[in-house]
Amino acid sequence: MRATVIHGPKDIRVEEVADPRIELPGDAVVRVTHACVCGSDLWAYRGVAARQPGQRIGHEFVGVVEQVGAGVGGLRPGDRVLAPFVWSDGTCAYCADGLHTSCPQGGFWGEVGSDGGQGEAVRVPFADGTLVRLPDDVDDALMPAVLALSDVMSTGHHAALAAGARPGATVAVVGDGAVGLCGVLAAHRLGAERIIVLGRHADRTAVARTFGAVDVVAERGEAAVGAVRELTGGQGAHAVLEAVGTEESMRTAISVARDGGAVGFVGVPHGGSAGVDLGQMFNRNVALRGGVAPARAYIPELLADVLAGRLDPSPVFDLTVRLDEVPAAYAAMDERRALKALIAF
Amino acid sequence: MRATVIHGPKDIRVEEVADPRIELPGDAVVRVTHACVCGSDLWAYRGVAARQPGQRIGHEFVGVVEQVGAGVGGLRPGDRVLAPFVWSDGTCAYCADGLHTSCPQGGFWGEVGSDGGQGEAVRVPFADGTLVRLPDDVDDALMPAVLALSDVMSTGHHAALAAGARPGATVAVVGDGAVGLCGVLAAHRLGAERIIVLGRHADRTAVARTFGAVDVVAERGEAAVGAVRELTGGQGAHAVLEAVGTEESMRTAISVARDGGAVGFVGVPHGGSAGVDLGQMFNRNVALRGGVAPARAYIPELLADVLAGRLDPSPVFDLTVRLDEVPAAYAAMDERRALKALIAF
Repeated sequence: MRATVIHGPKDIRVEEVADPRIELPGDAVVRVTHACVCGSDLWAYRGVAARQPGQRIGHEFVGVVEQVGAGVGGLRPGDRVLAPFVWSDGTCAYCADGLHTSCPQGGFWGEVGSDGGQGEAVRVPFADGTLVRLPDDVDDALMPAVLALSDVMSTGHHAALAAGARPGATVAVVGDGAVGLCGVLAAHRLGAERIIVLGRHADRTAVARTFGAVDVVAERGEAAVGAVRELTGGQGAHAVLEAVGTEESMRTAISVARDGGAVGFVGVPHGGSAGVDLGQMFNRNVALRGGVAPARAYIPELLADVLAGRLDPSPVFDLTVRLDEVPAAYAAMDERRALKALIAF
Repeated sequence: MRATVIHGPKDIRVEEVADPRIELPGDAVVRVTHACVCGSDLWAYRGVAARQPGQRIGHEFVGVVEQVGAGVGGLRPGDRVLAPFVWSDGTCAYCADGLHTSCPQGGFWGEVGSDGGQGEAVRVPFADGTLVRLPDDVDDALMPAVLALSDVMSTGHHAALAAGARPGATVAVVGDGAVGLCGVLAAHRLGAERIIVLGRHADRTAVARTFGAVDVVAERGEAAVGAVRELTGGQGAHAVLEAVGTEESMRTAISVARDGGAVGFVGVPHGGSAGVDLGQMFNRNVALRGGVAPARAYIPELLADVLAGRLDPSPVFDLTVRLDEVPAAYAAMDERRALKALIAF
């Protein structure tokens, strides 16, 4: 079969690889129908996150079960399924707690020895615990929205929960990438009273507005902090979603939080902790929560809303490519010509 | 009157100062009956926290109202009162939220222009909002326990709440100072299933055991992390209280937290944020919450328990001095010959 492989910085290729097969009784093989490219894939593409040459890549996919191992009880060939961006056994204490990302048997698609999502098929370990079955009659038109639950929408939801987005709250979202936009949508879904998005890309903040943001702050750094404070009567936002992952974005996020508020951080941290102003957190009781989102825990609830037409994160996809065009999709996202690329098989 | 004044590092004197008087209608003048020296006062004593020569010092006191301004409605001369370690107006949005430490009109005893708690009397701004009236018939024997609510016990409670101490939780407390010990007591009061204290002073960890700790880890750094993980089946503690405020203690606190857990930090941060391992927090979803404790919000609930005999933090006091002996009490605490000194007037 064909799959996307990373050979080095800016060297992404679609090439022939071995077909996946059942290796353990809990495995399934899933034929991918929809996948996508994540902003976090760009860290590998740019060489900032190290990868071994020849590693697979891609961690978001929807597909059809092709084969199941003898130990799989809840899935059959032909089932349509959604995969969260990590696999997990579904049975450990962490999975029971809803923190599937800490499952000791879990792993990340594309890590050494595993398949990536940007390929024609994927071997799925712990298929019963990992995959979420979709209704047989799910409308194809909903698949982009469903696919977004694999990572970006679940991650935005995690940020919103961690930050304490809730009815009555003023929410600030730092970052206008796909996760930031999904954070806006998640905060809106959780009933936030007012949502401010911090971003400087007009096409993206336009999406943020359709997702529920009422204010856009294009400034950065101290100017952004001043702008958010001015918009909030000097107080800052009850809940702040940090969806970038740089020192500057963290510094901004903490600074725009209201005293007693929280920063929900989901931007993969690149750089040190210098942006974490402990003195400010201490004096103003600003909390910092979040991390890698346990998408598997959130998907059932979010999927119900997508299927019912109450939640639609699909506008984060502004480019659709075929598998052969994936390298071009990385380049388009890297050069900010595209926000997020959907791969249709 | 006489009060404690700081003139420079290791230069604490008890000297004659102007008598306090009503300056604003909301003021009260309180004659101090019990005060104490805080571990955080030692930062000023050691010259780590800057003070202007001649500043007052001390922020924990119990006393009797001597005079009230025309605008004070809830207090009369003769009332026995407890002061939290900051004053606050009691009417703003932050006070209403229970975050009195962020009151825009609030302040810290001993800051320039205000009285400190380690003196014969104190002018109390916003007396109605700040002071908590004690029952007329409160037993004198309870006063050390009541006094501890002014700061250390409320701060330990804040740490325990911020960390998420609760029934069923394993709690680790980093630090065996008065706040750490009160954190143990607070976690125990909140129903924690198992409490581990990290500290190397046998006399203090002995108090921790009487407060509810079942395990003592005397190691530091990586060895402490290993010991806590061994005690918790490799997982770490659900709730970690950070009651020191150094880079090393923060690093330890984050490292001993269970995935999905939280660090409640109340140690005044001295040093930068290098101990905040964002990558670890992200990968394991460890939260960091806390800060300066809104003691005023907690005192009513904690006081009820003290008065009912259900809560007794008074063992944190292991030295009692008269006002004249306060400089010696600082030296004793600085040299770790005393944990916390009570000043009886």
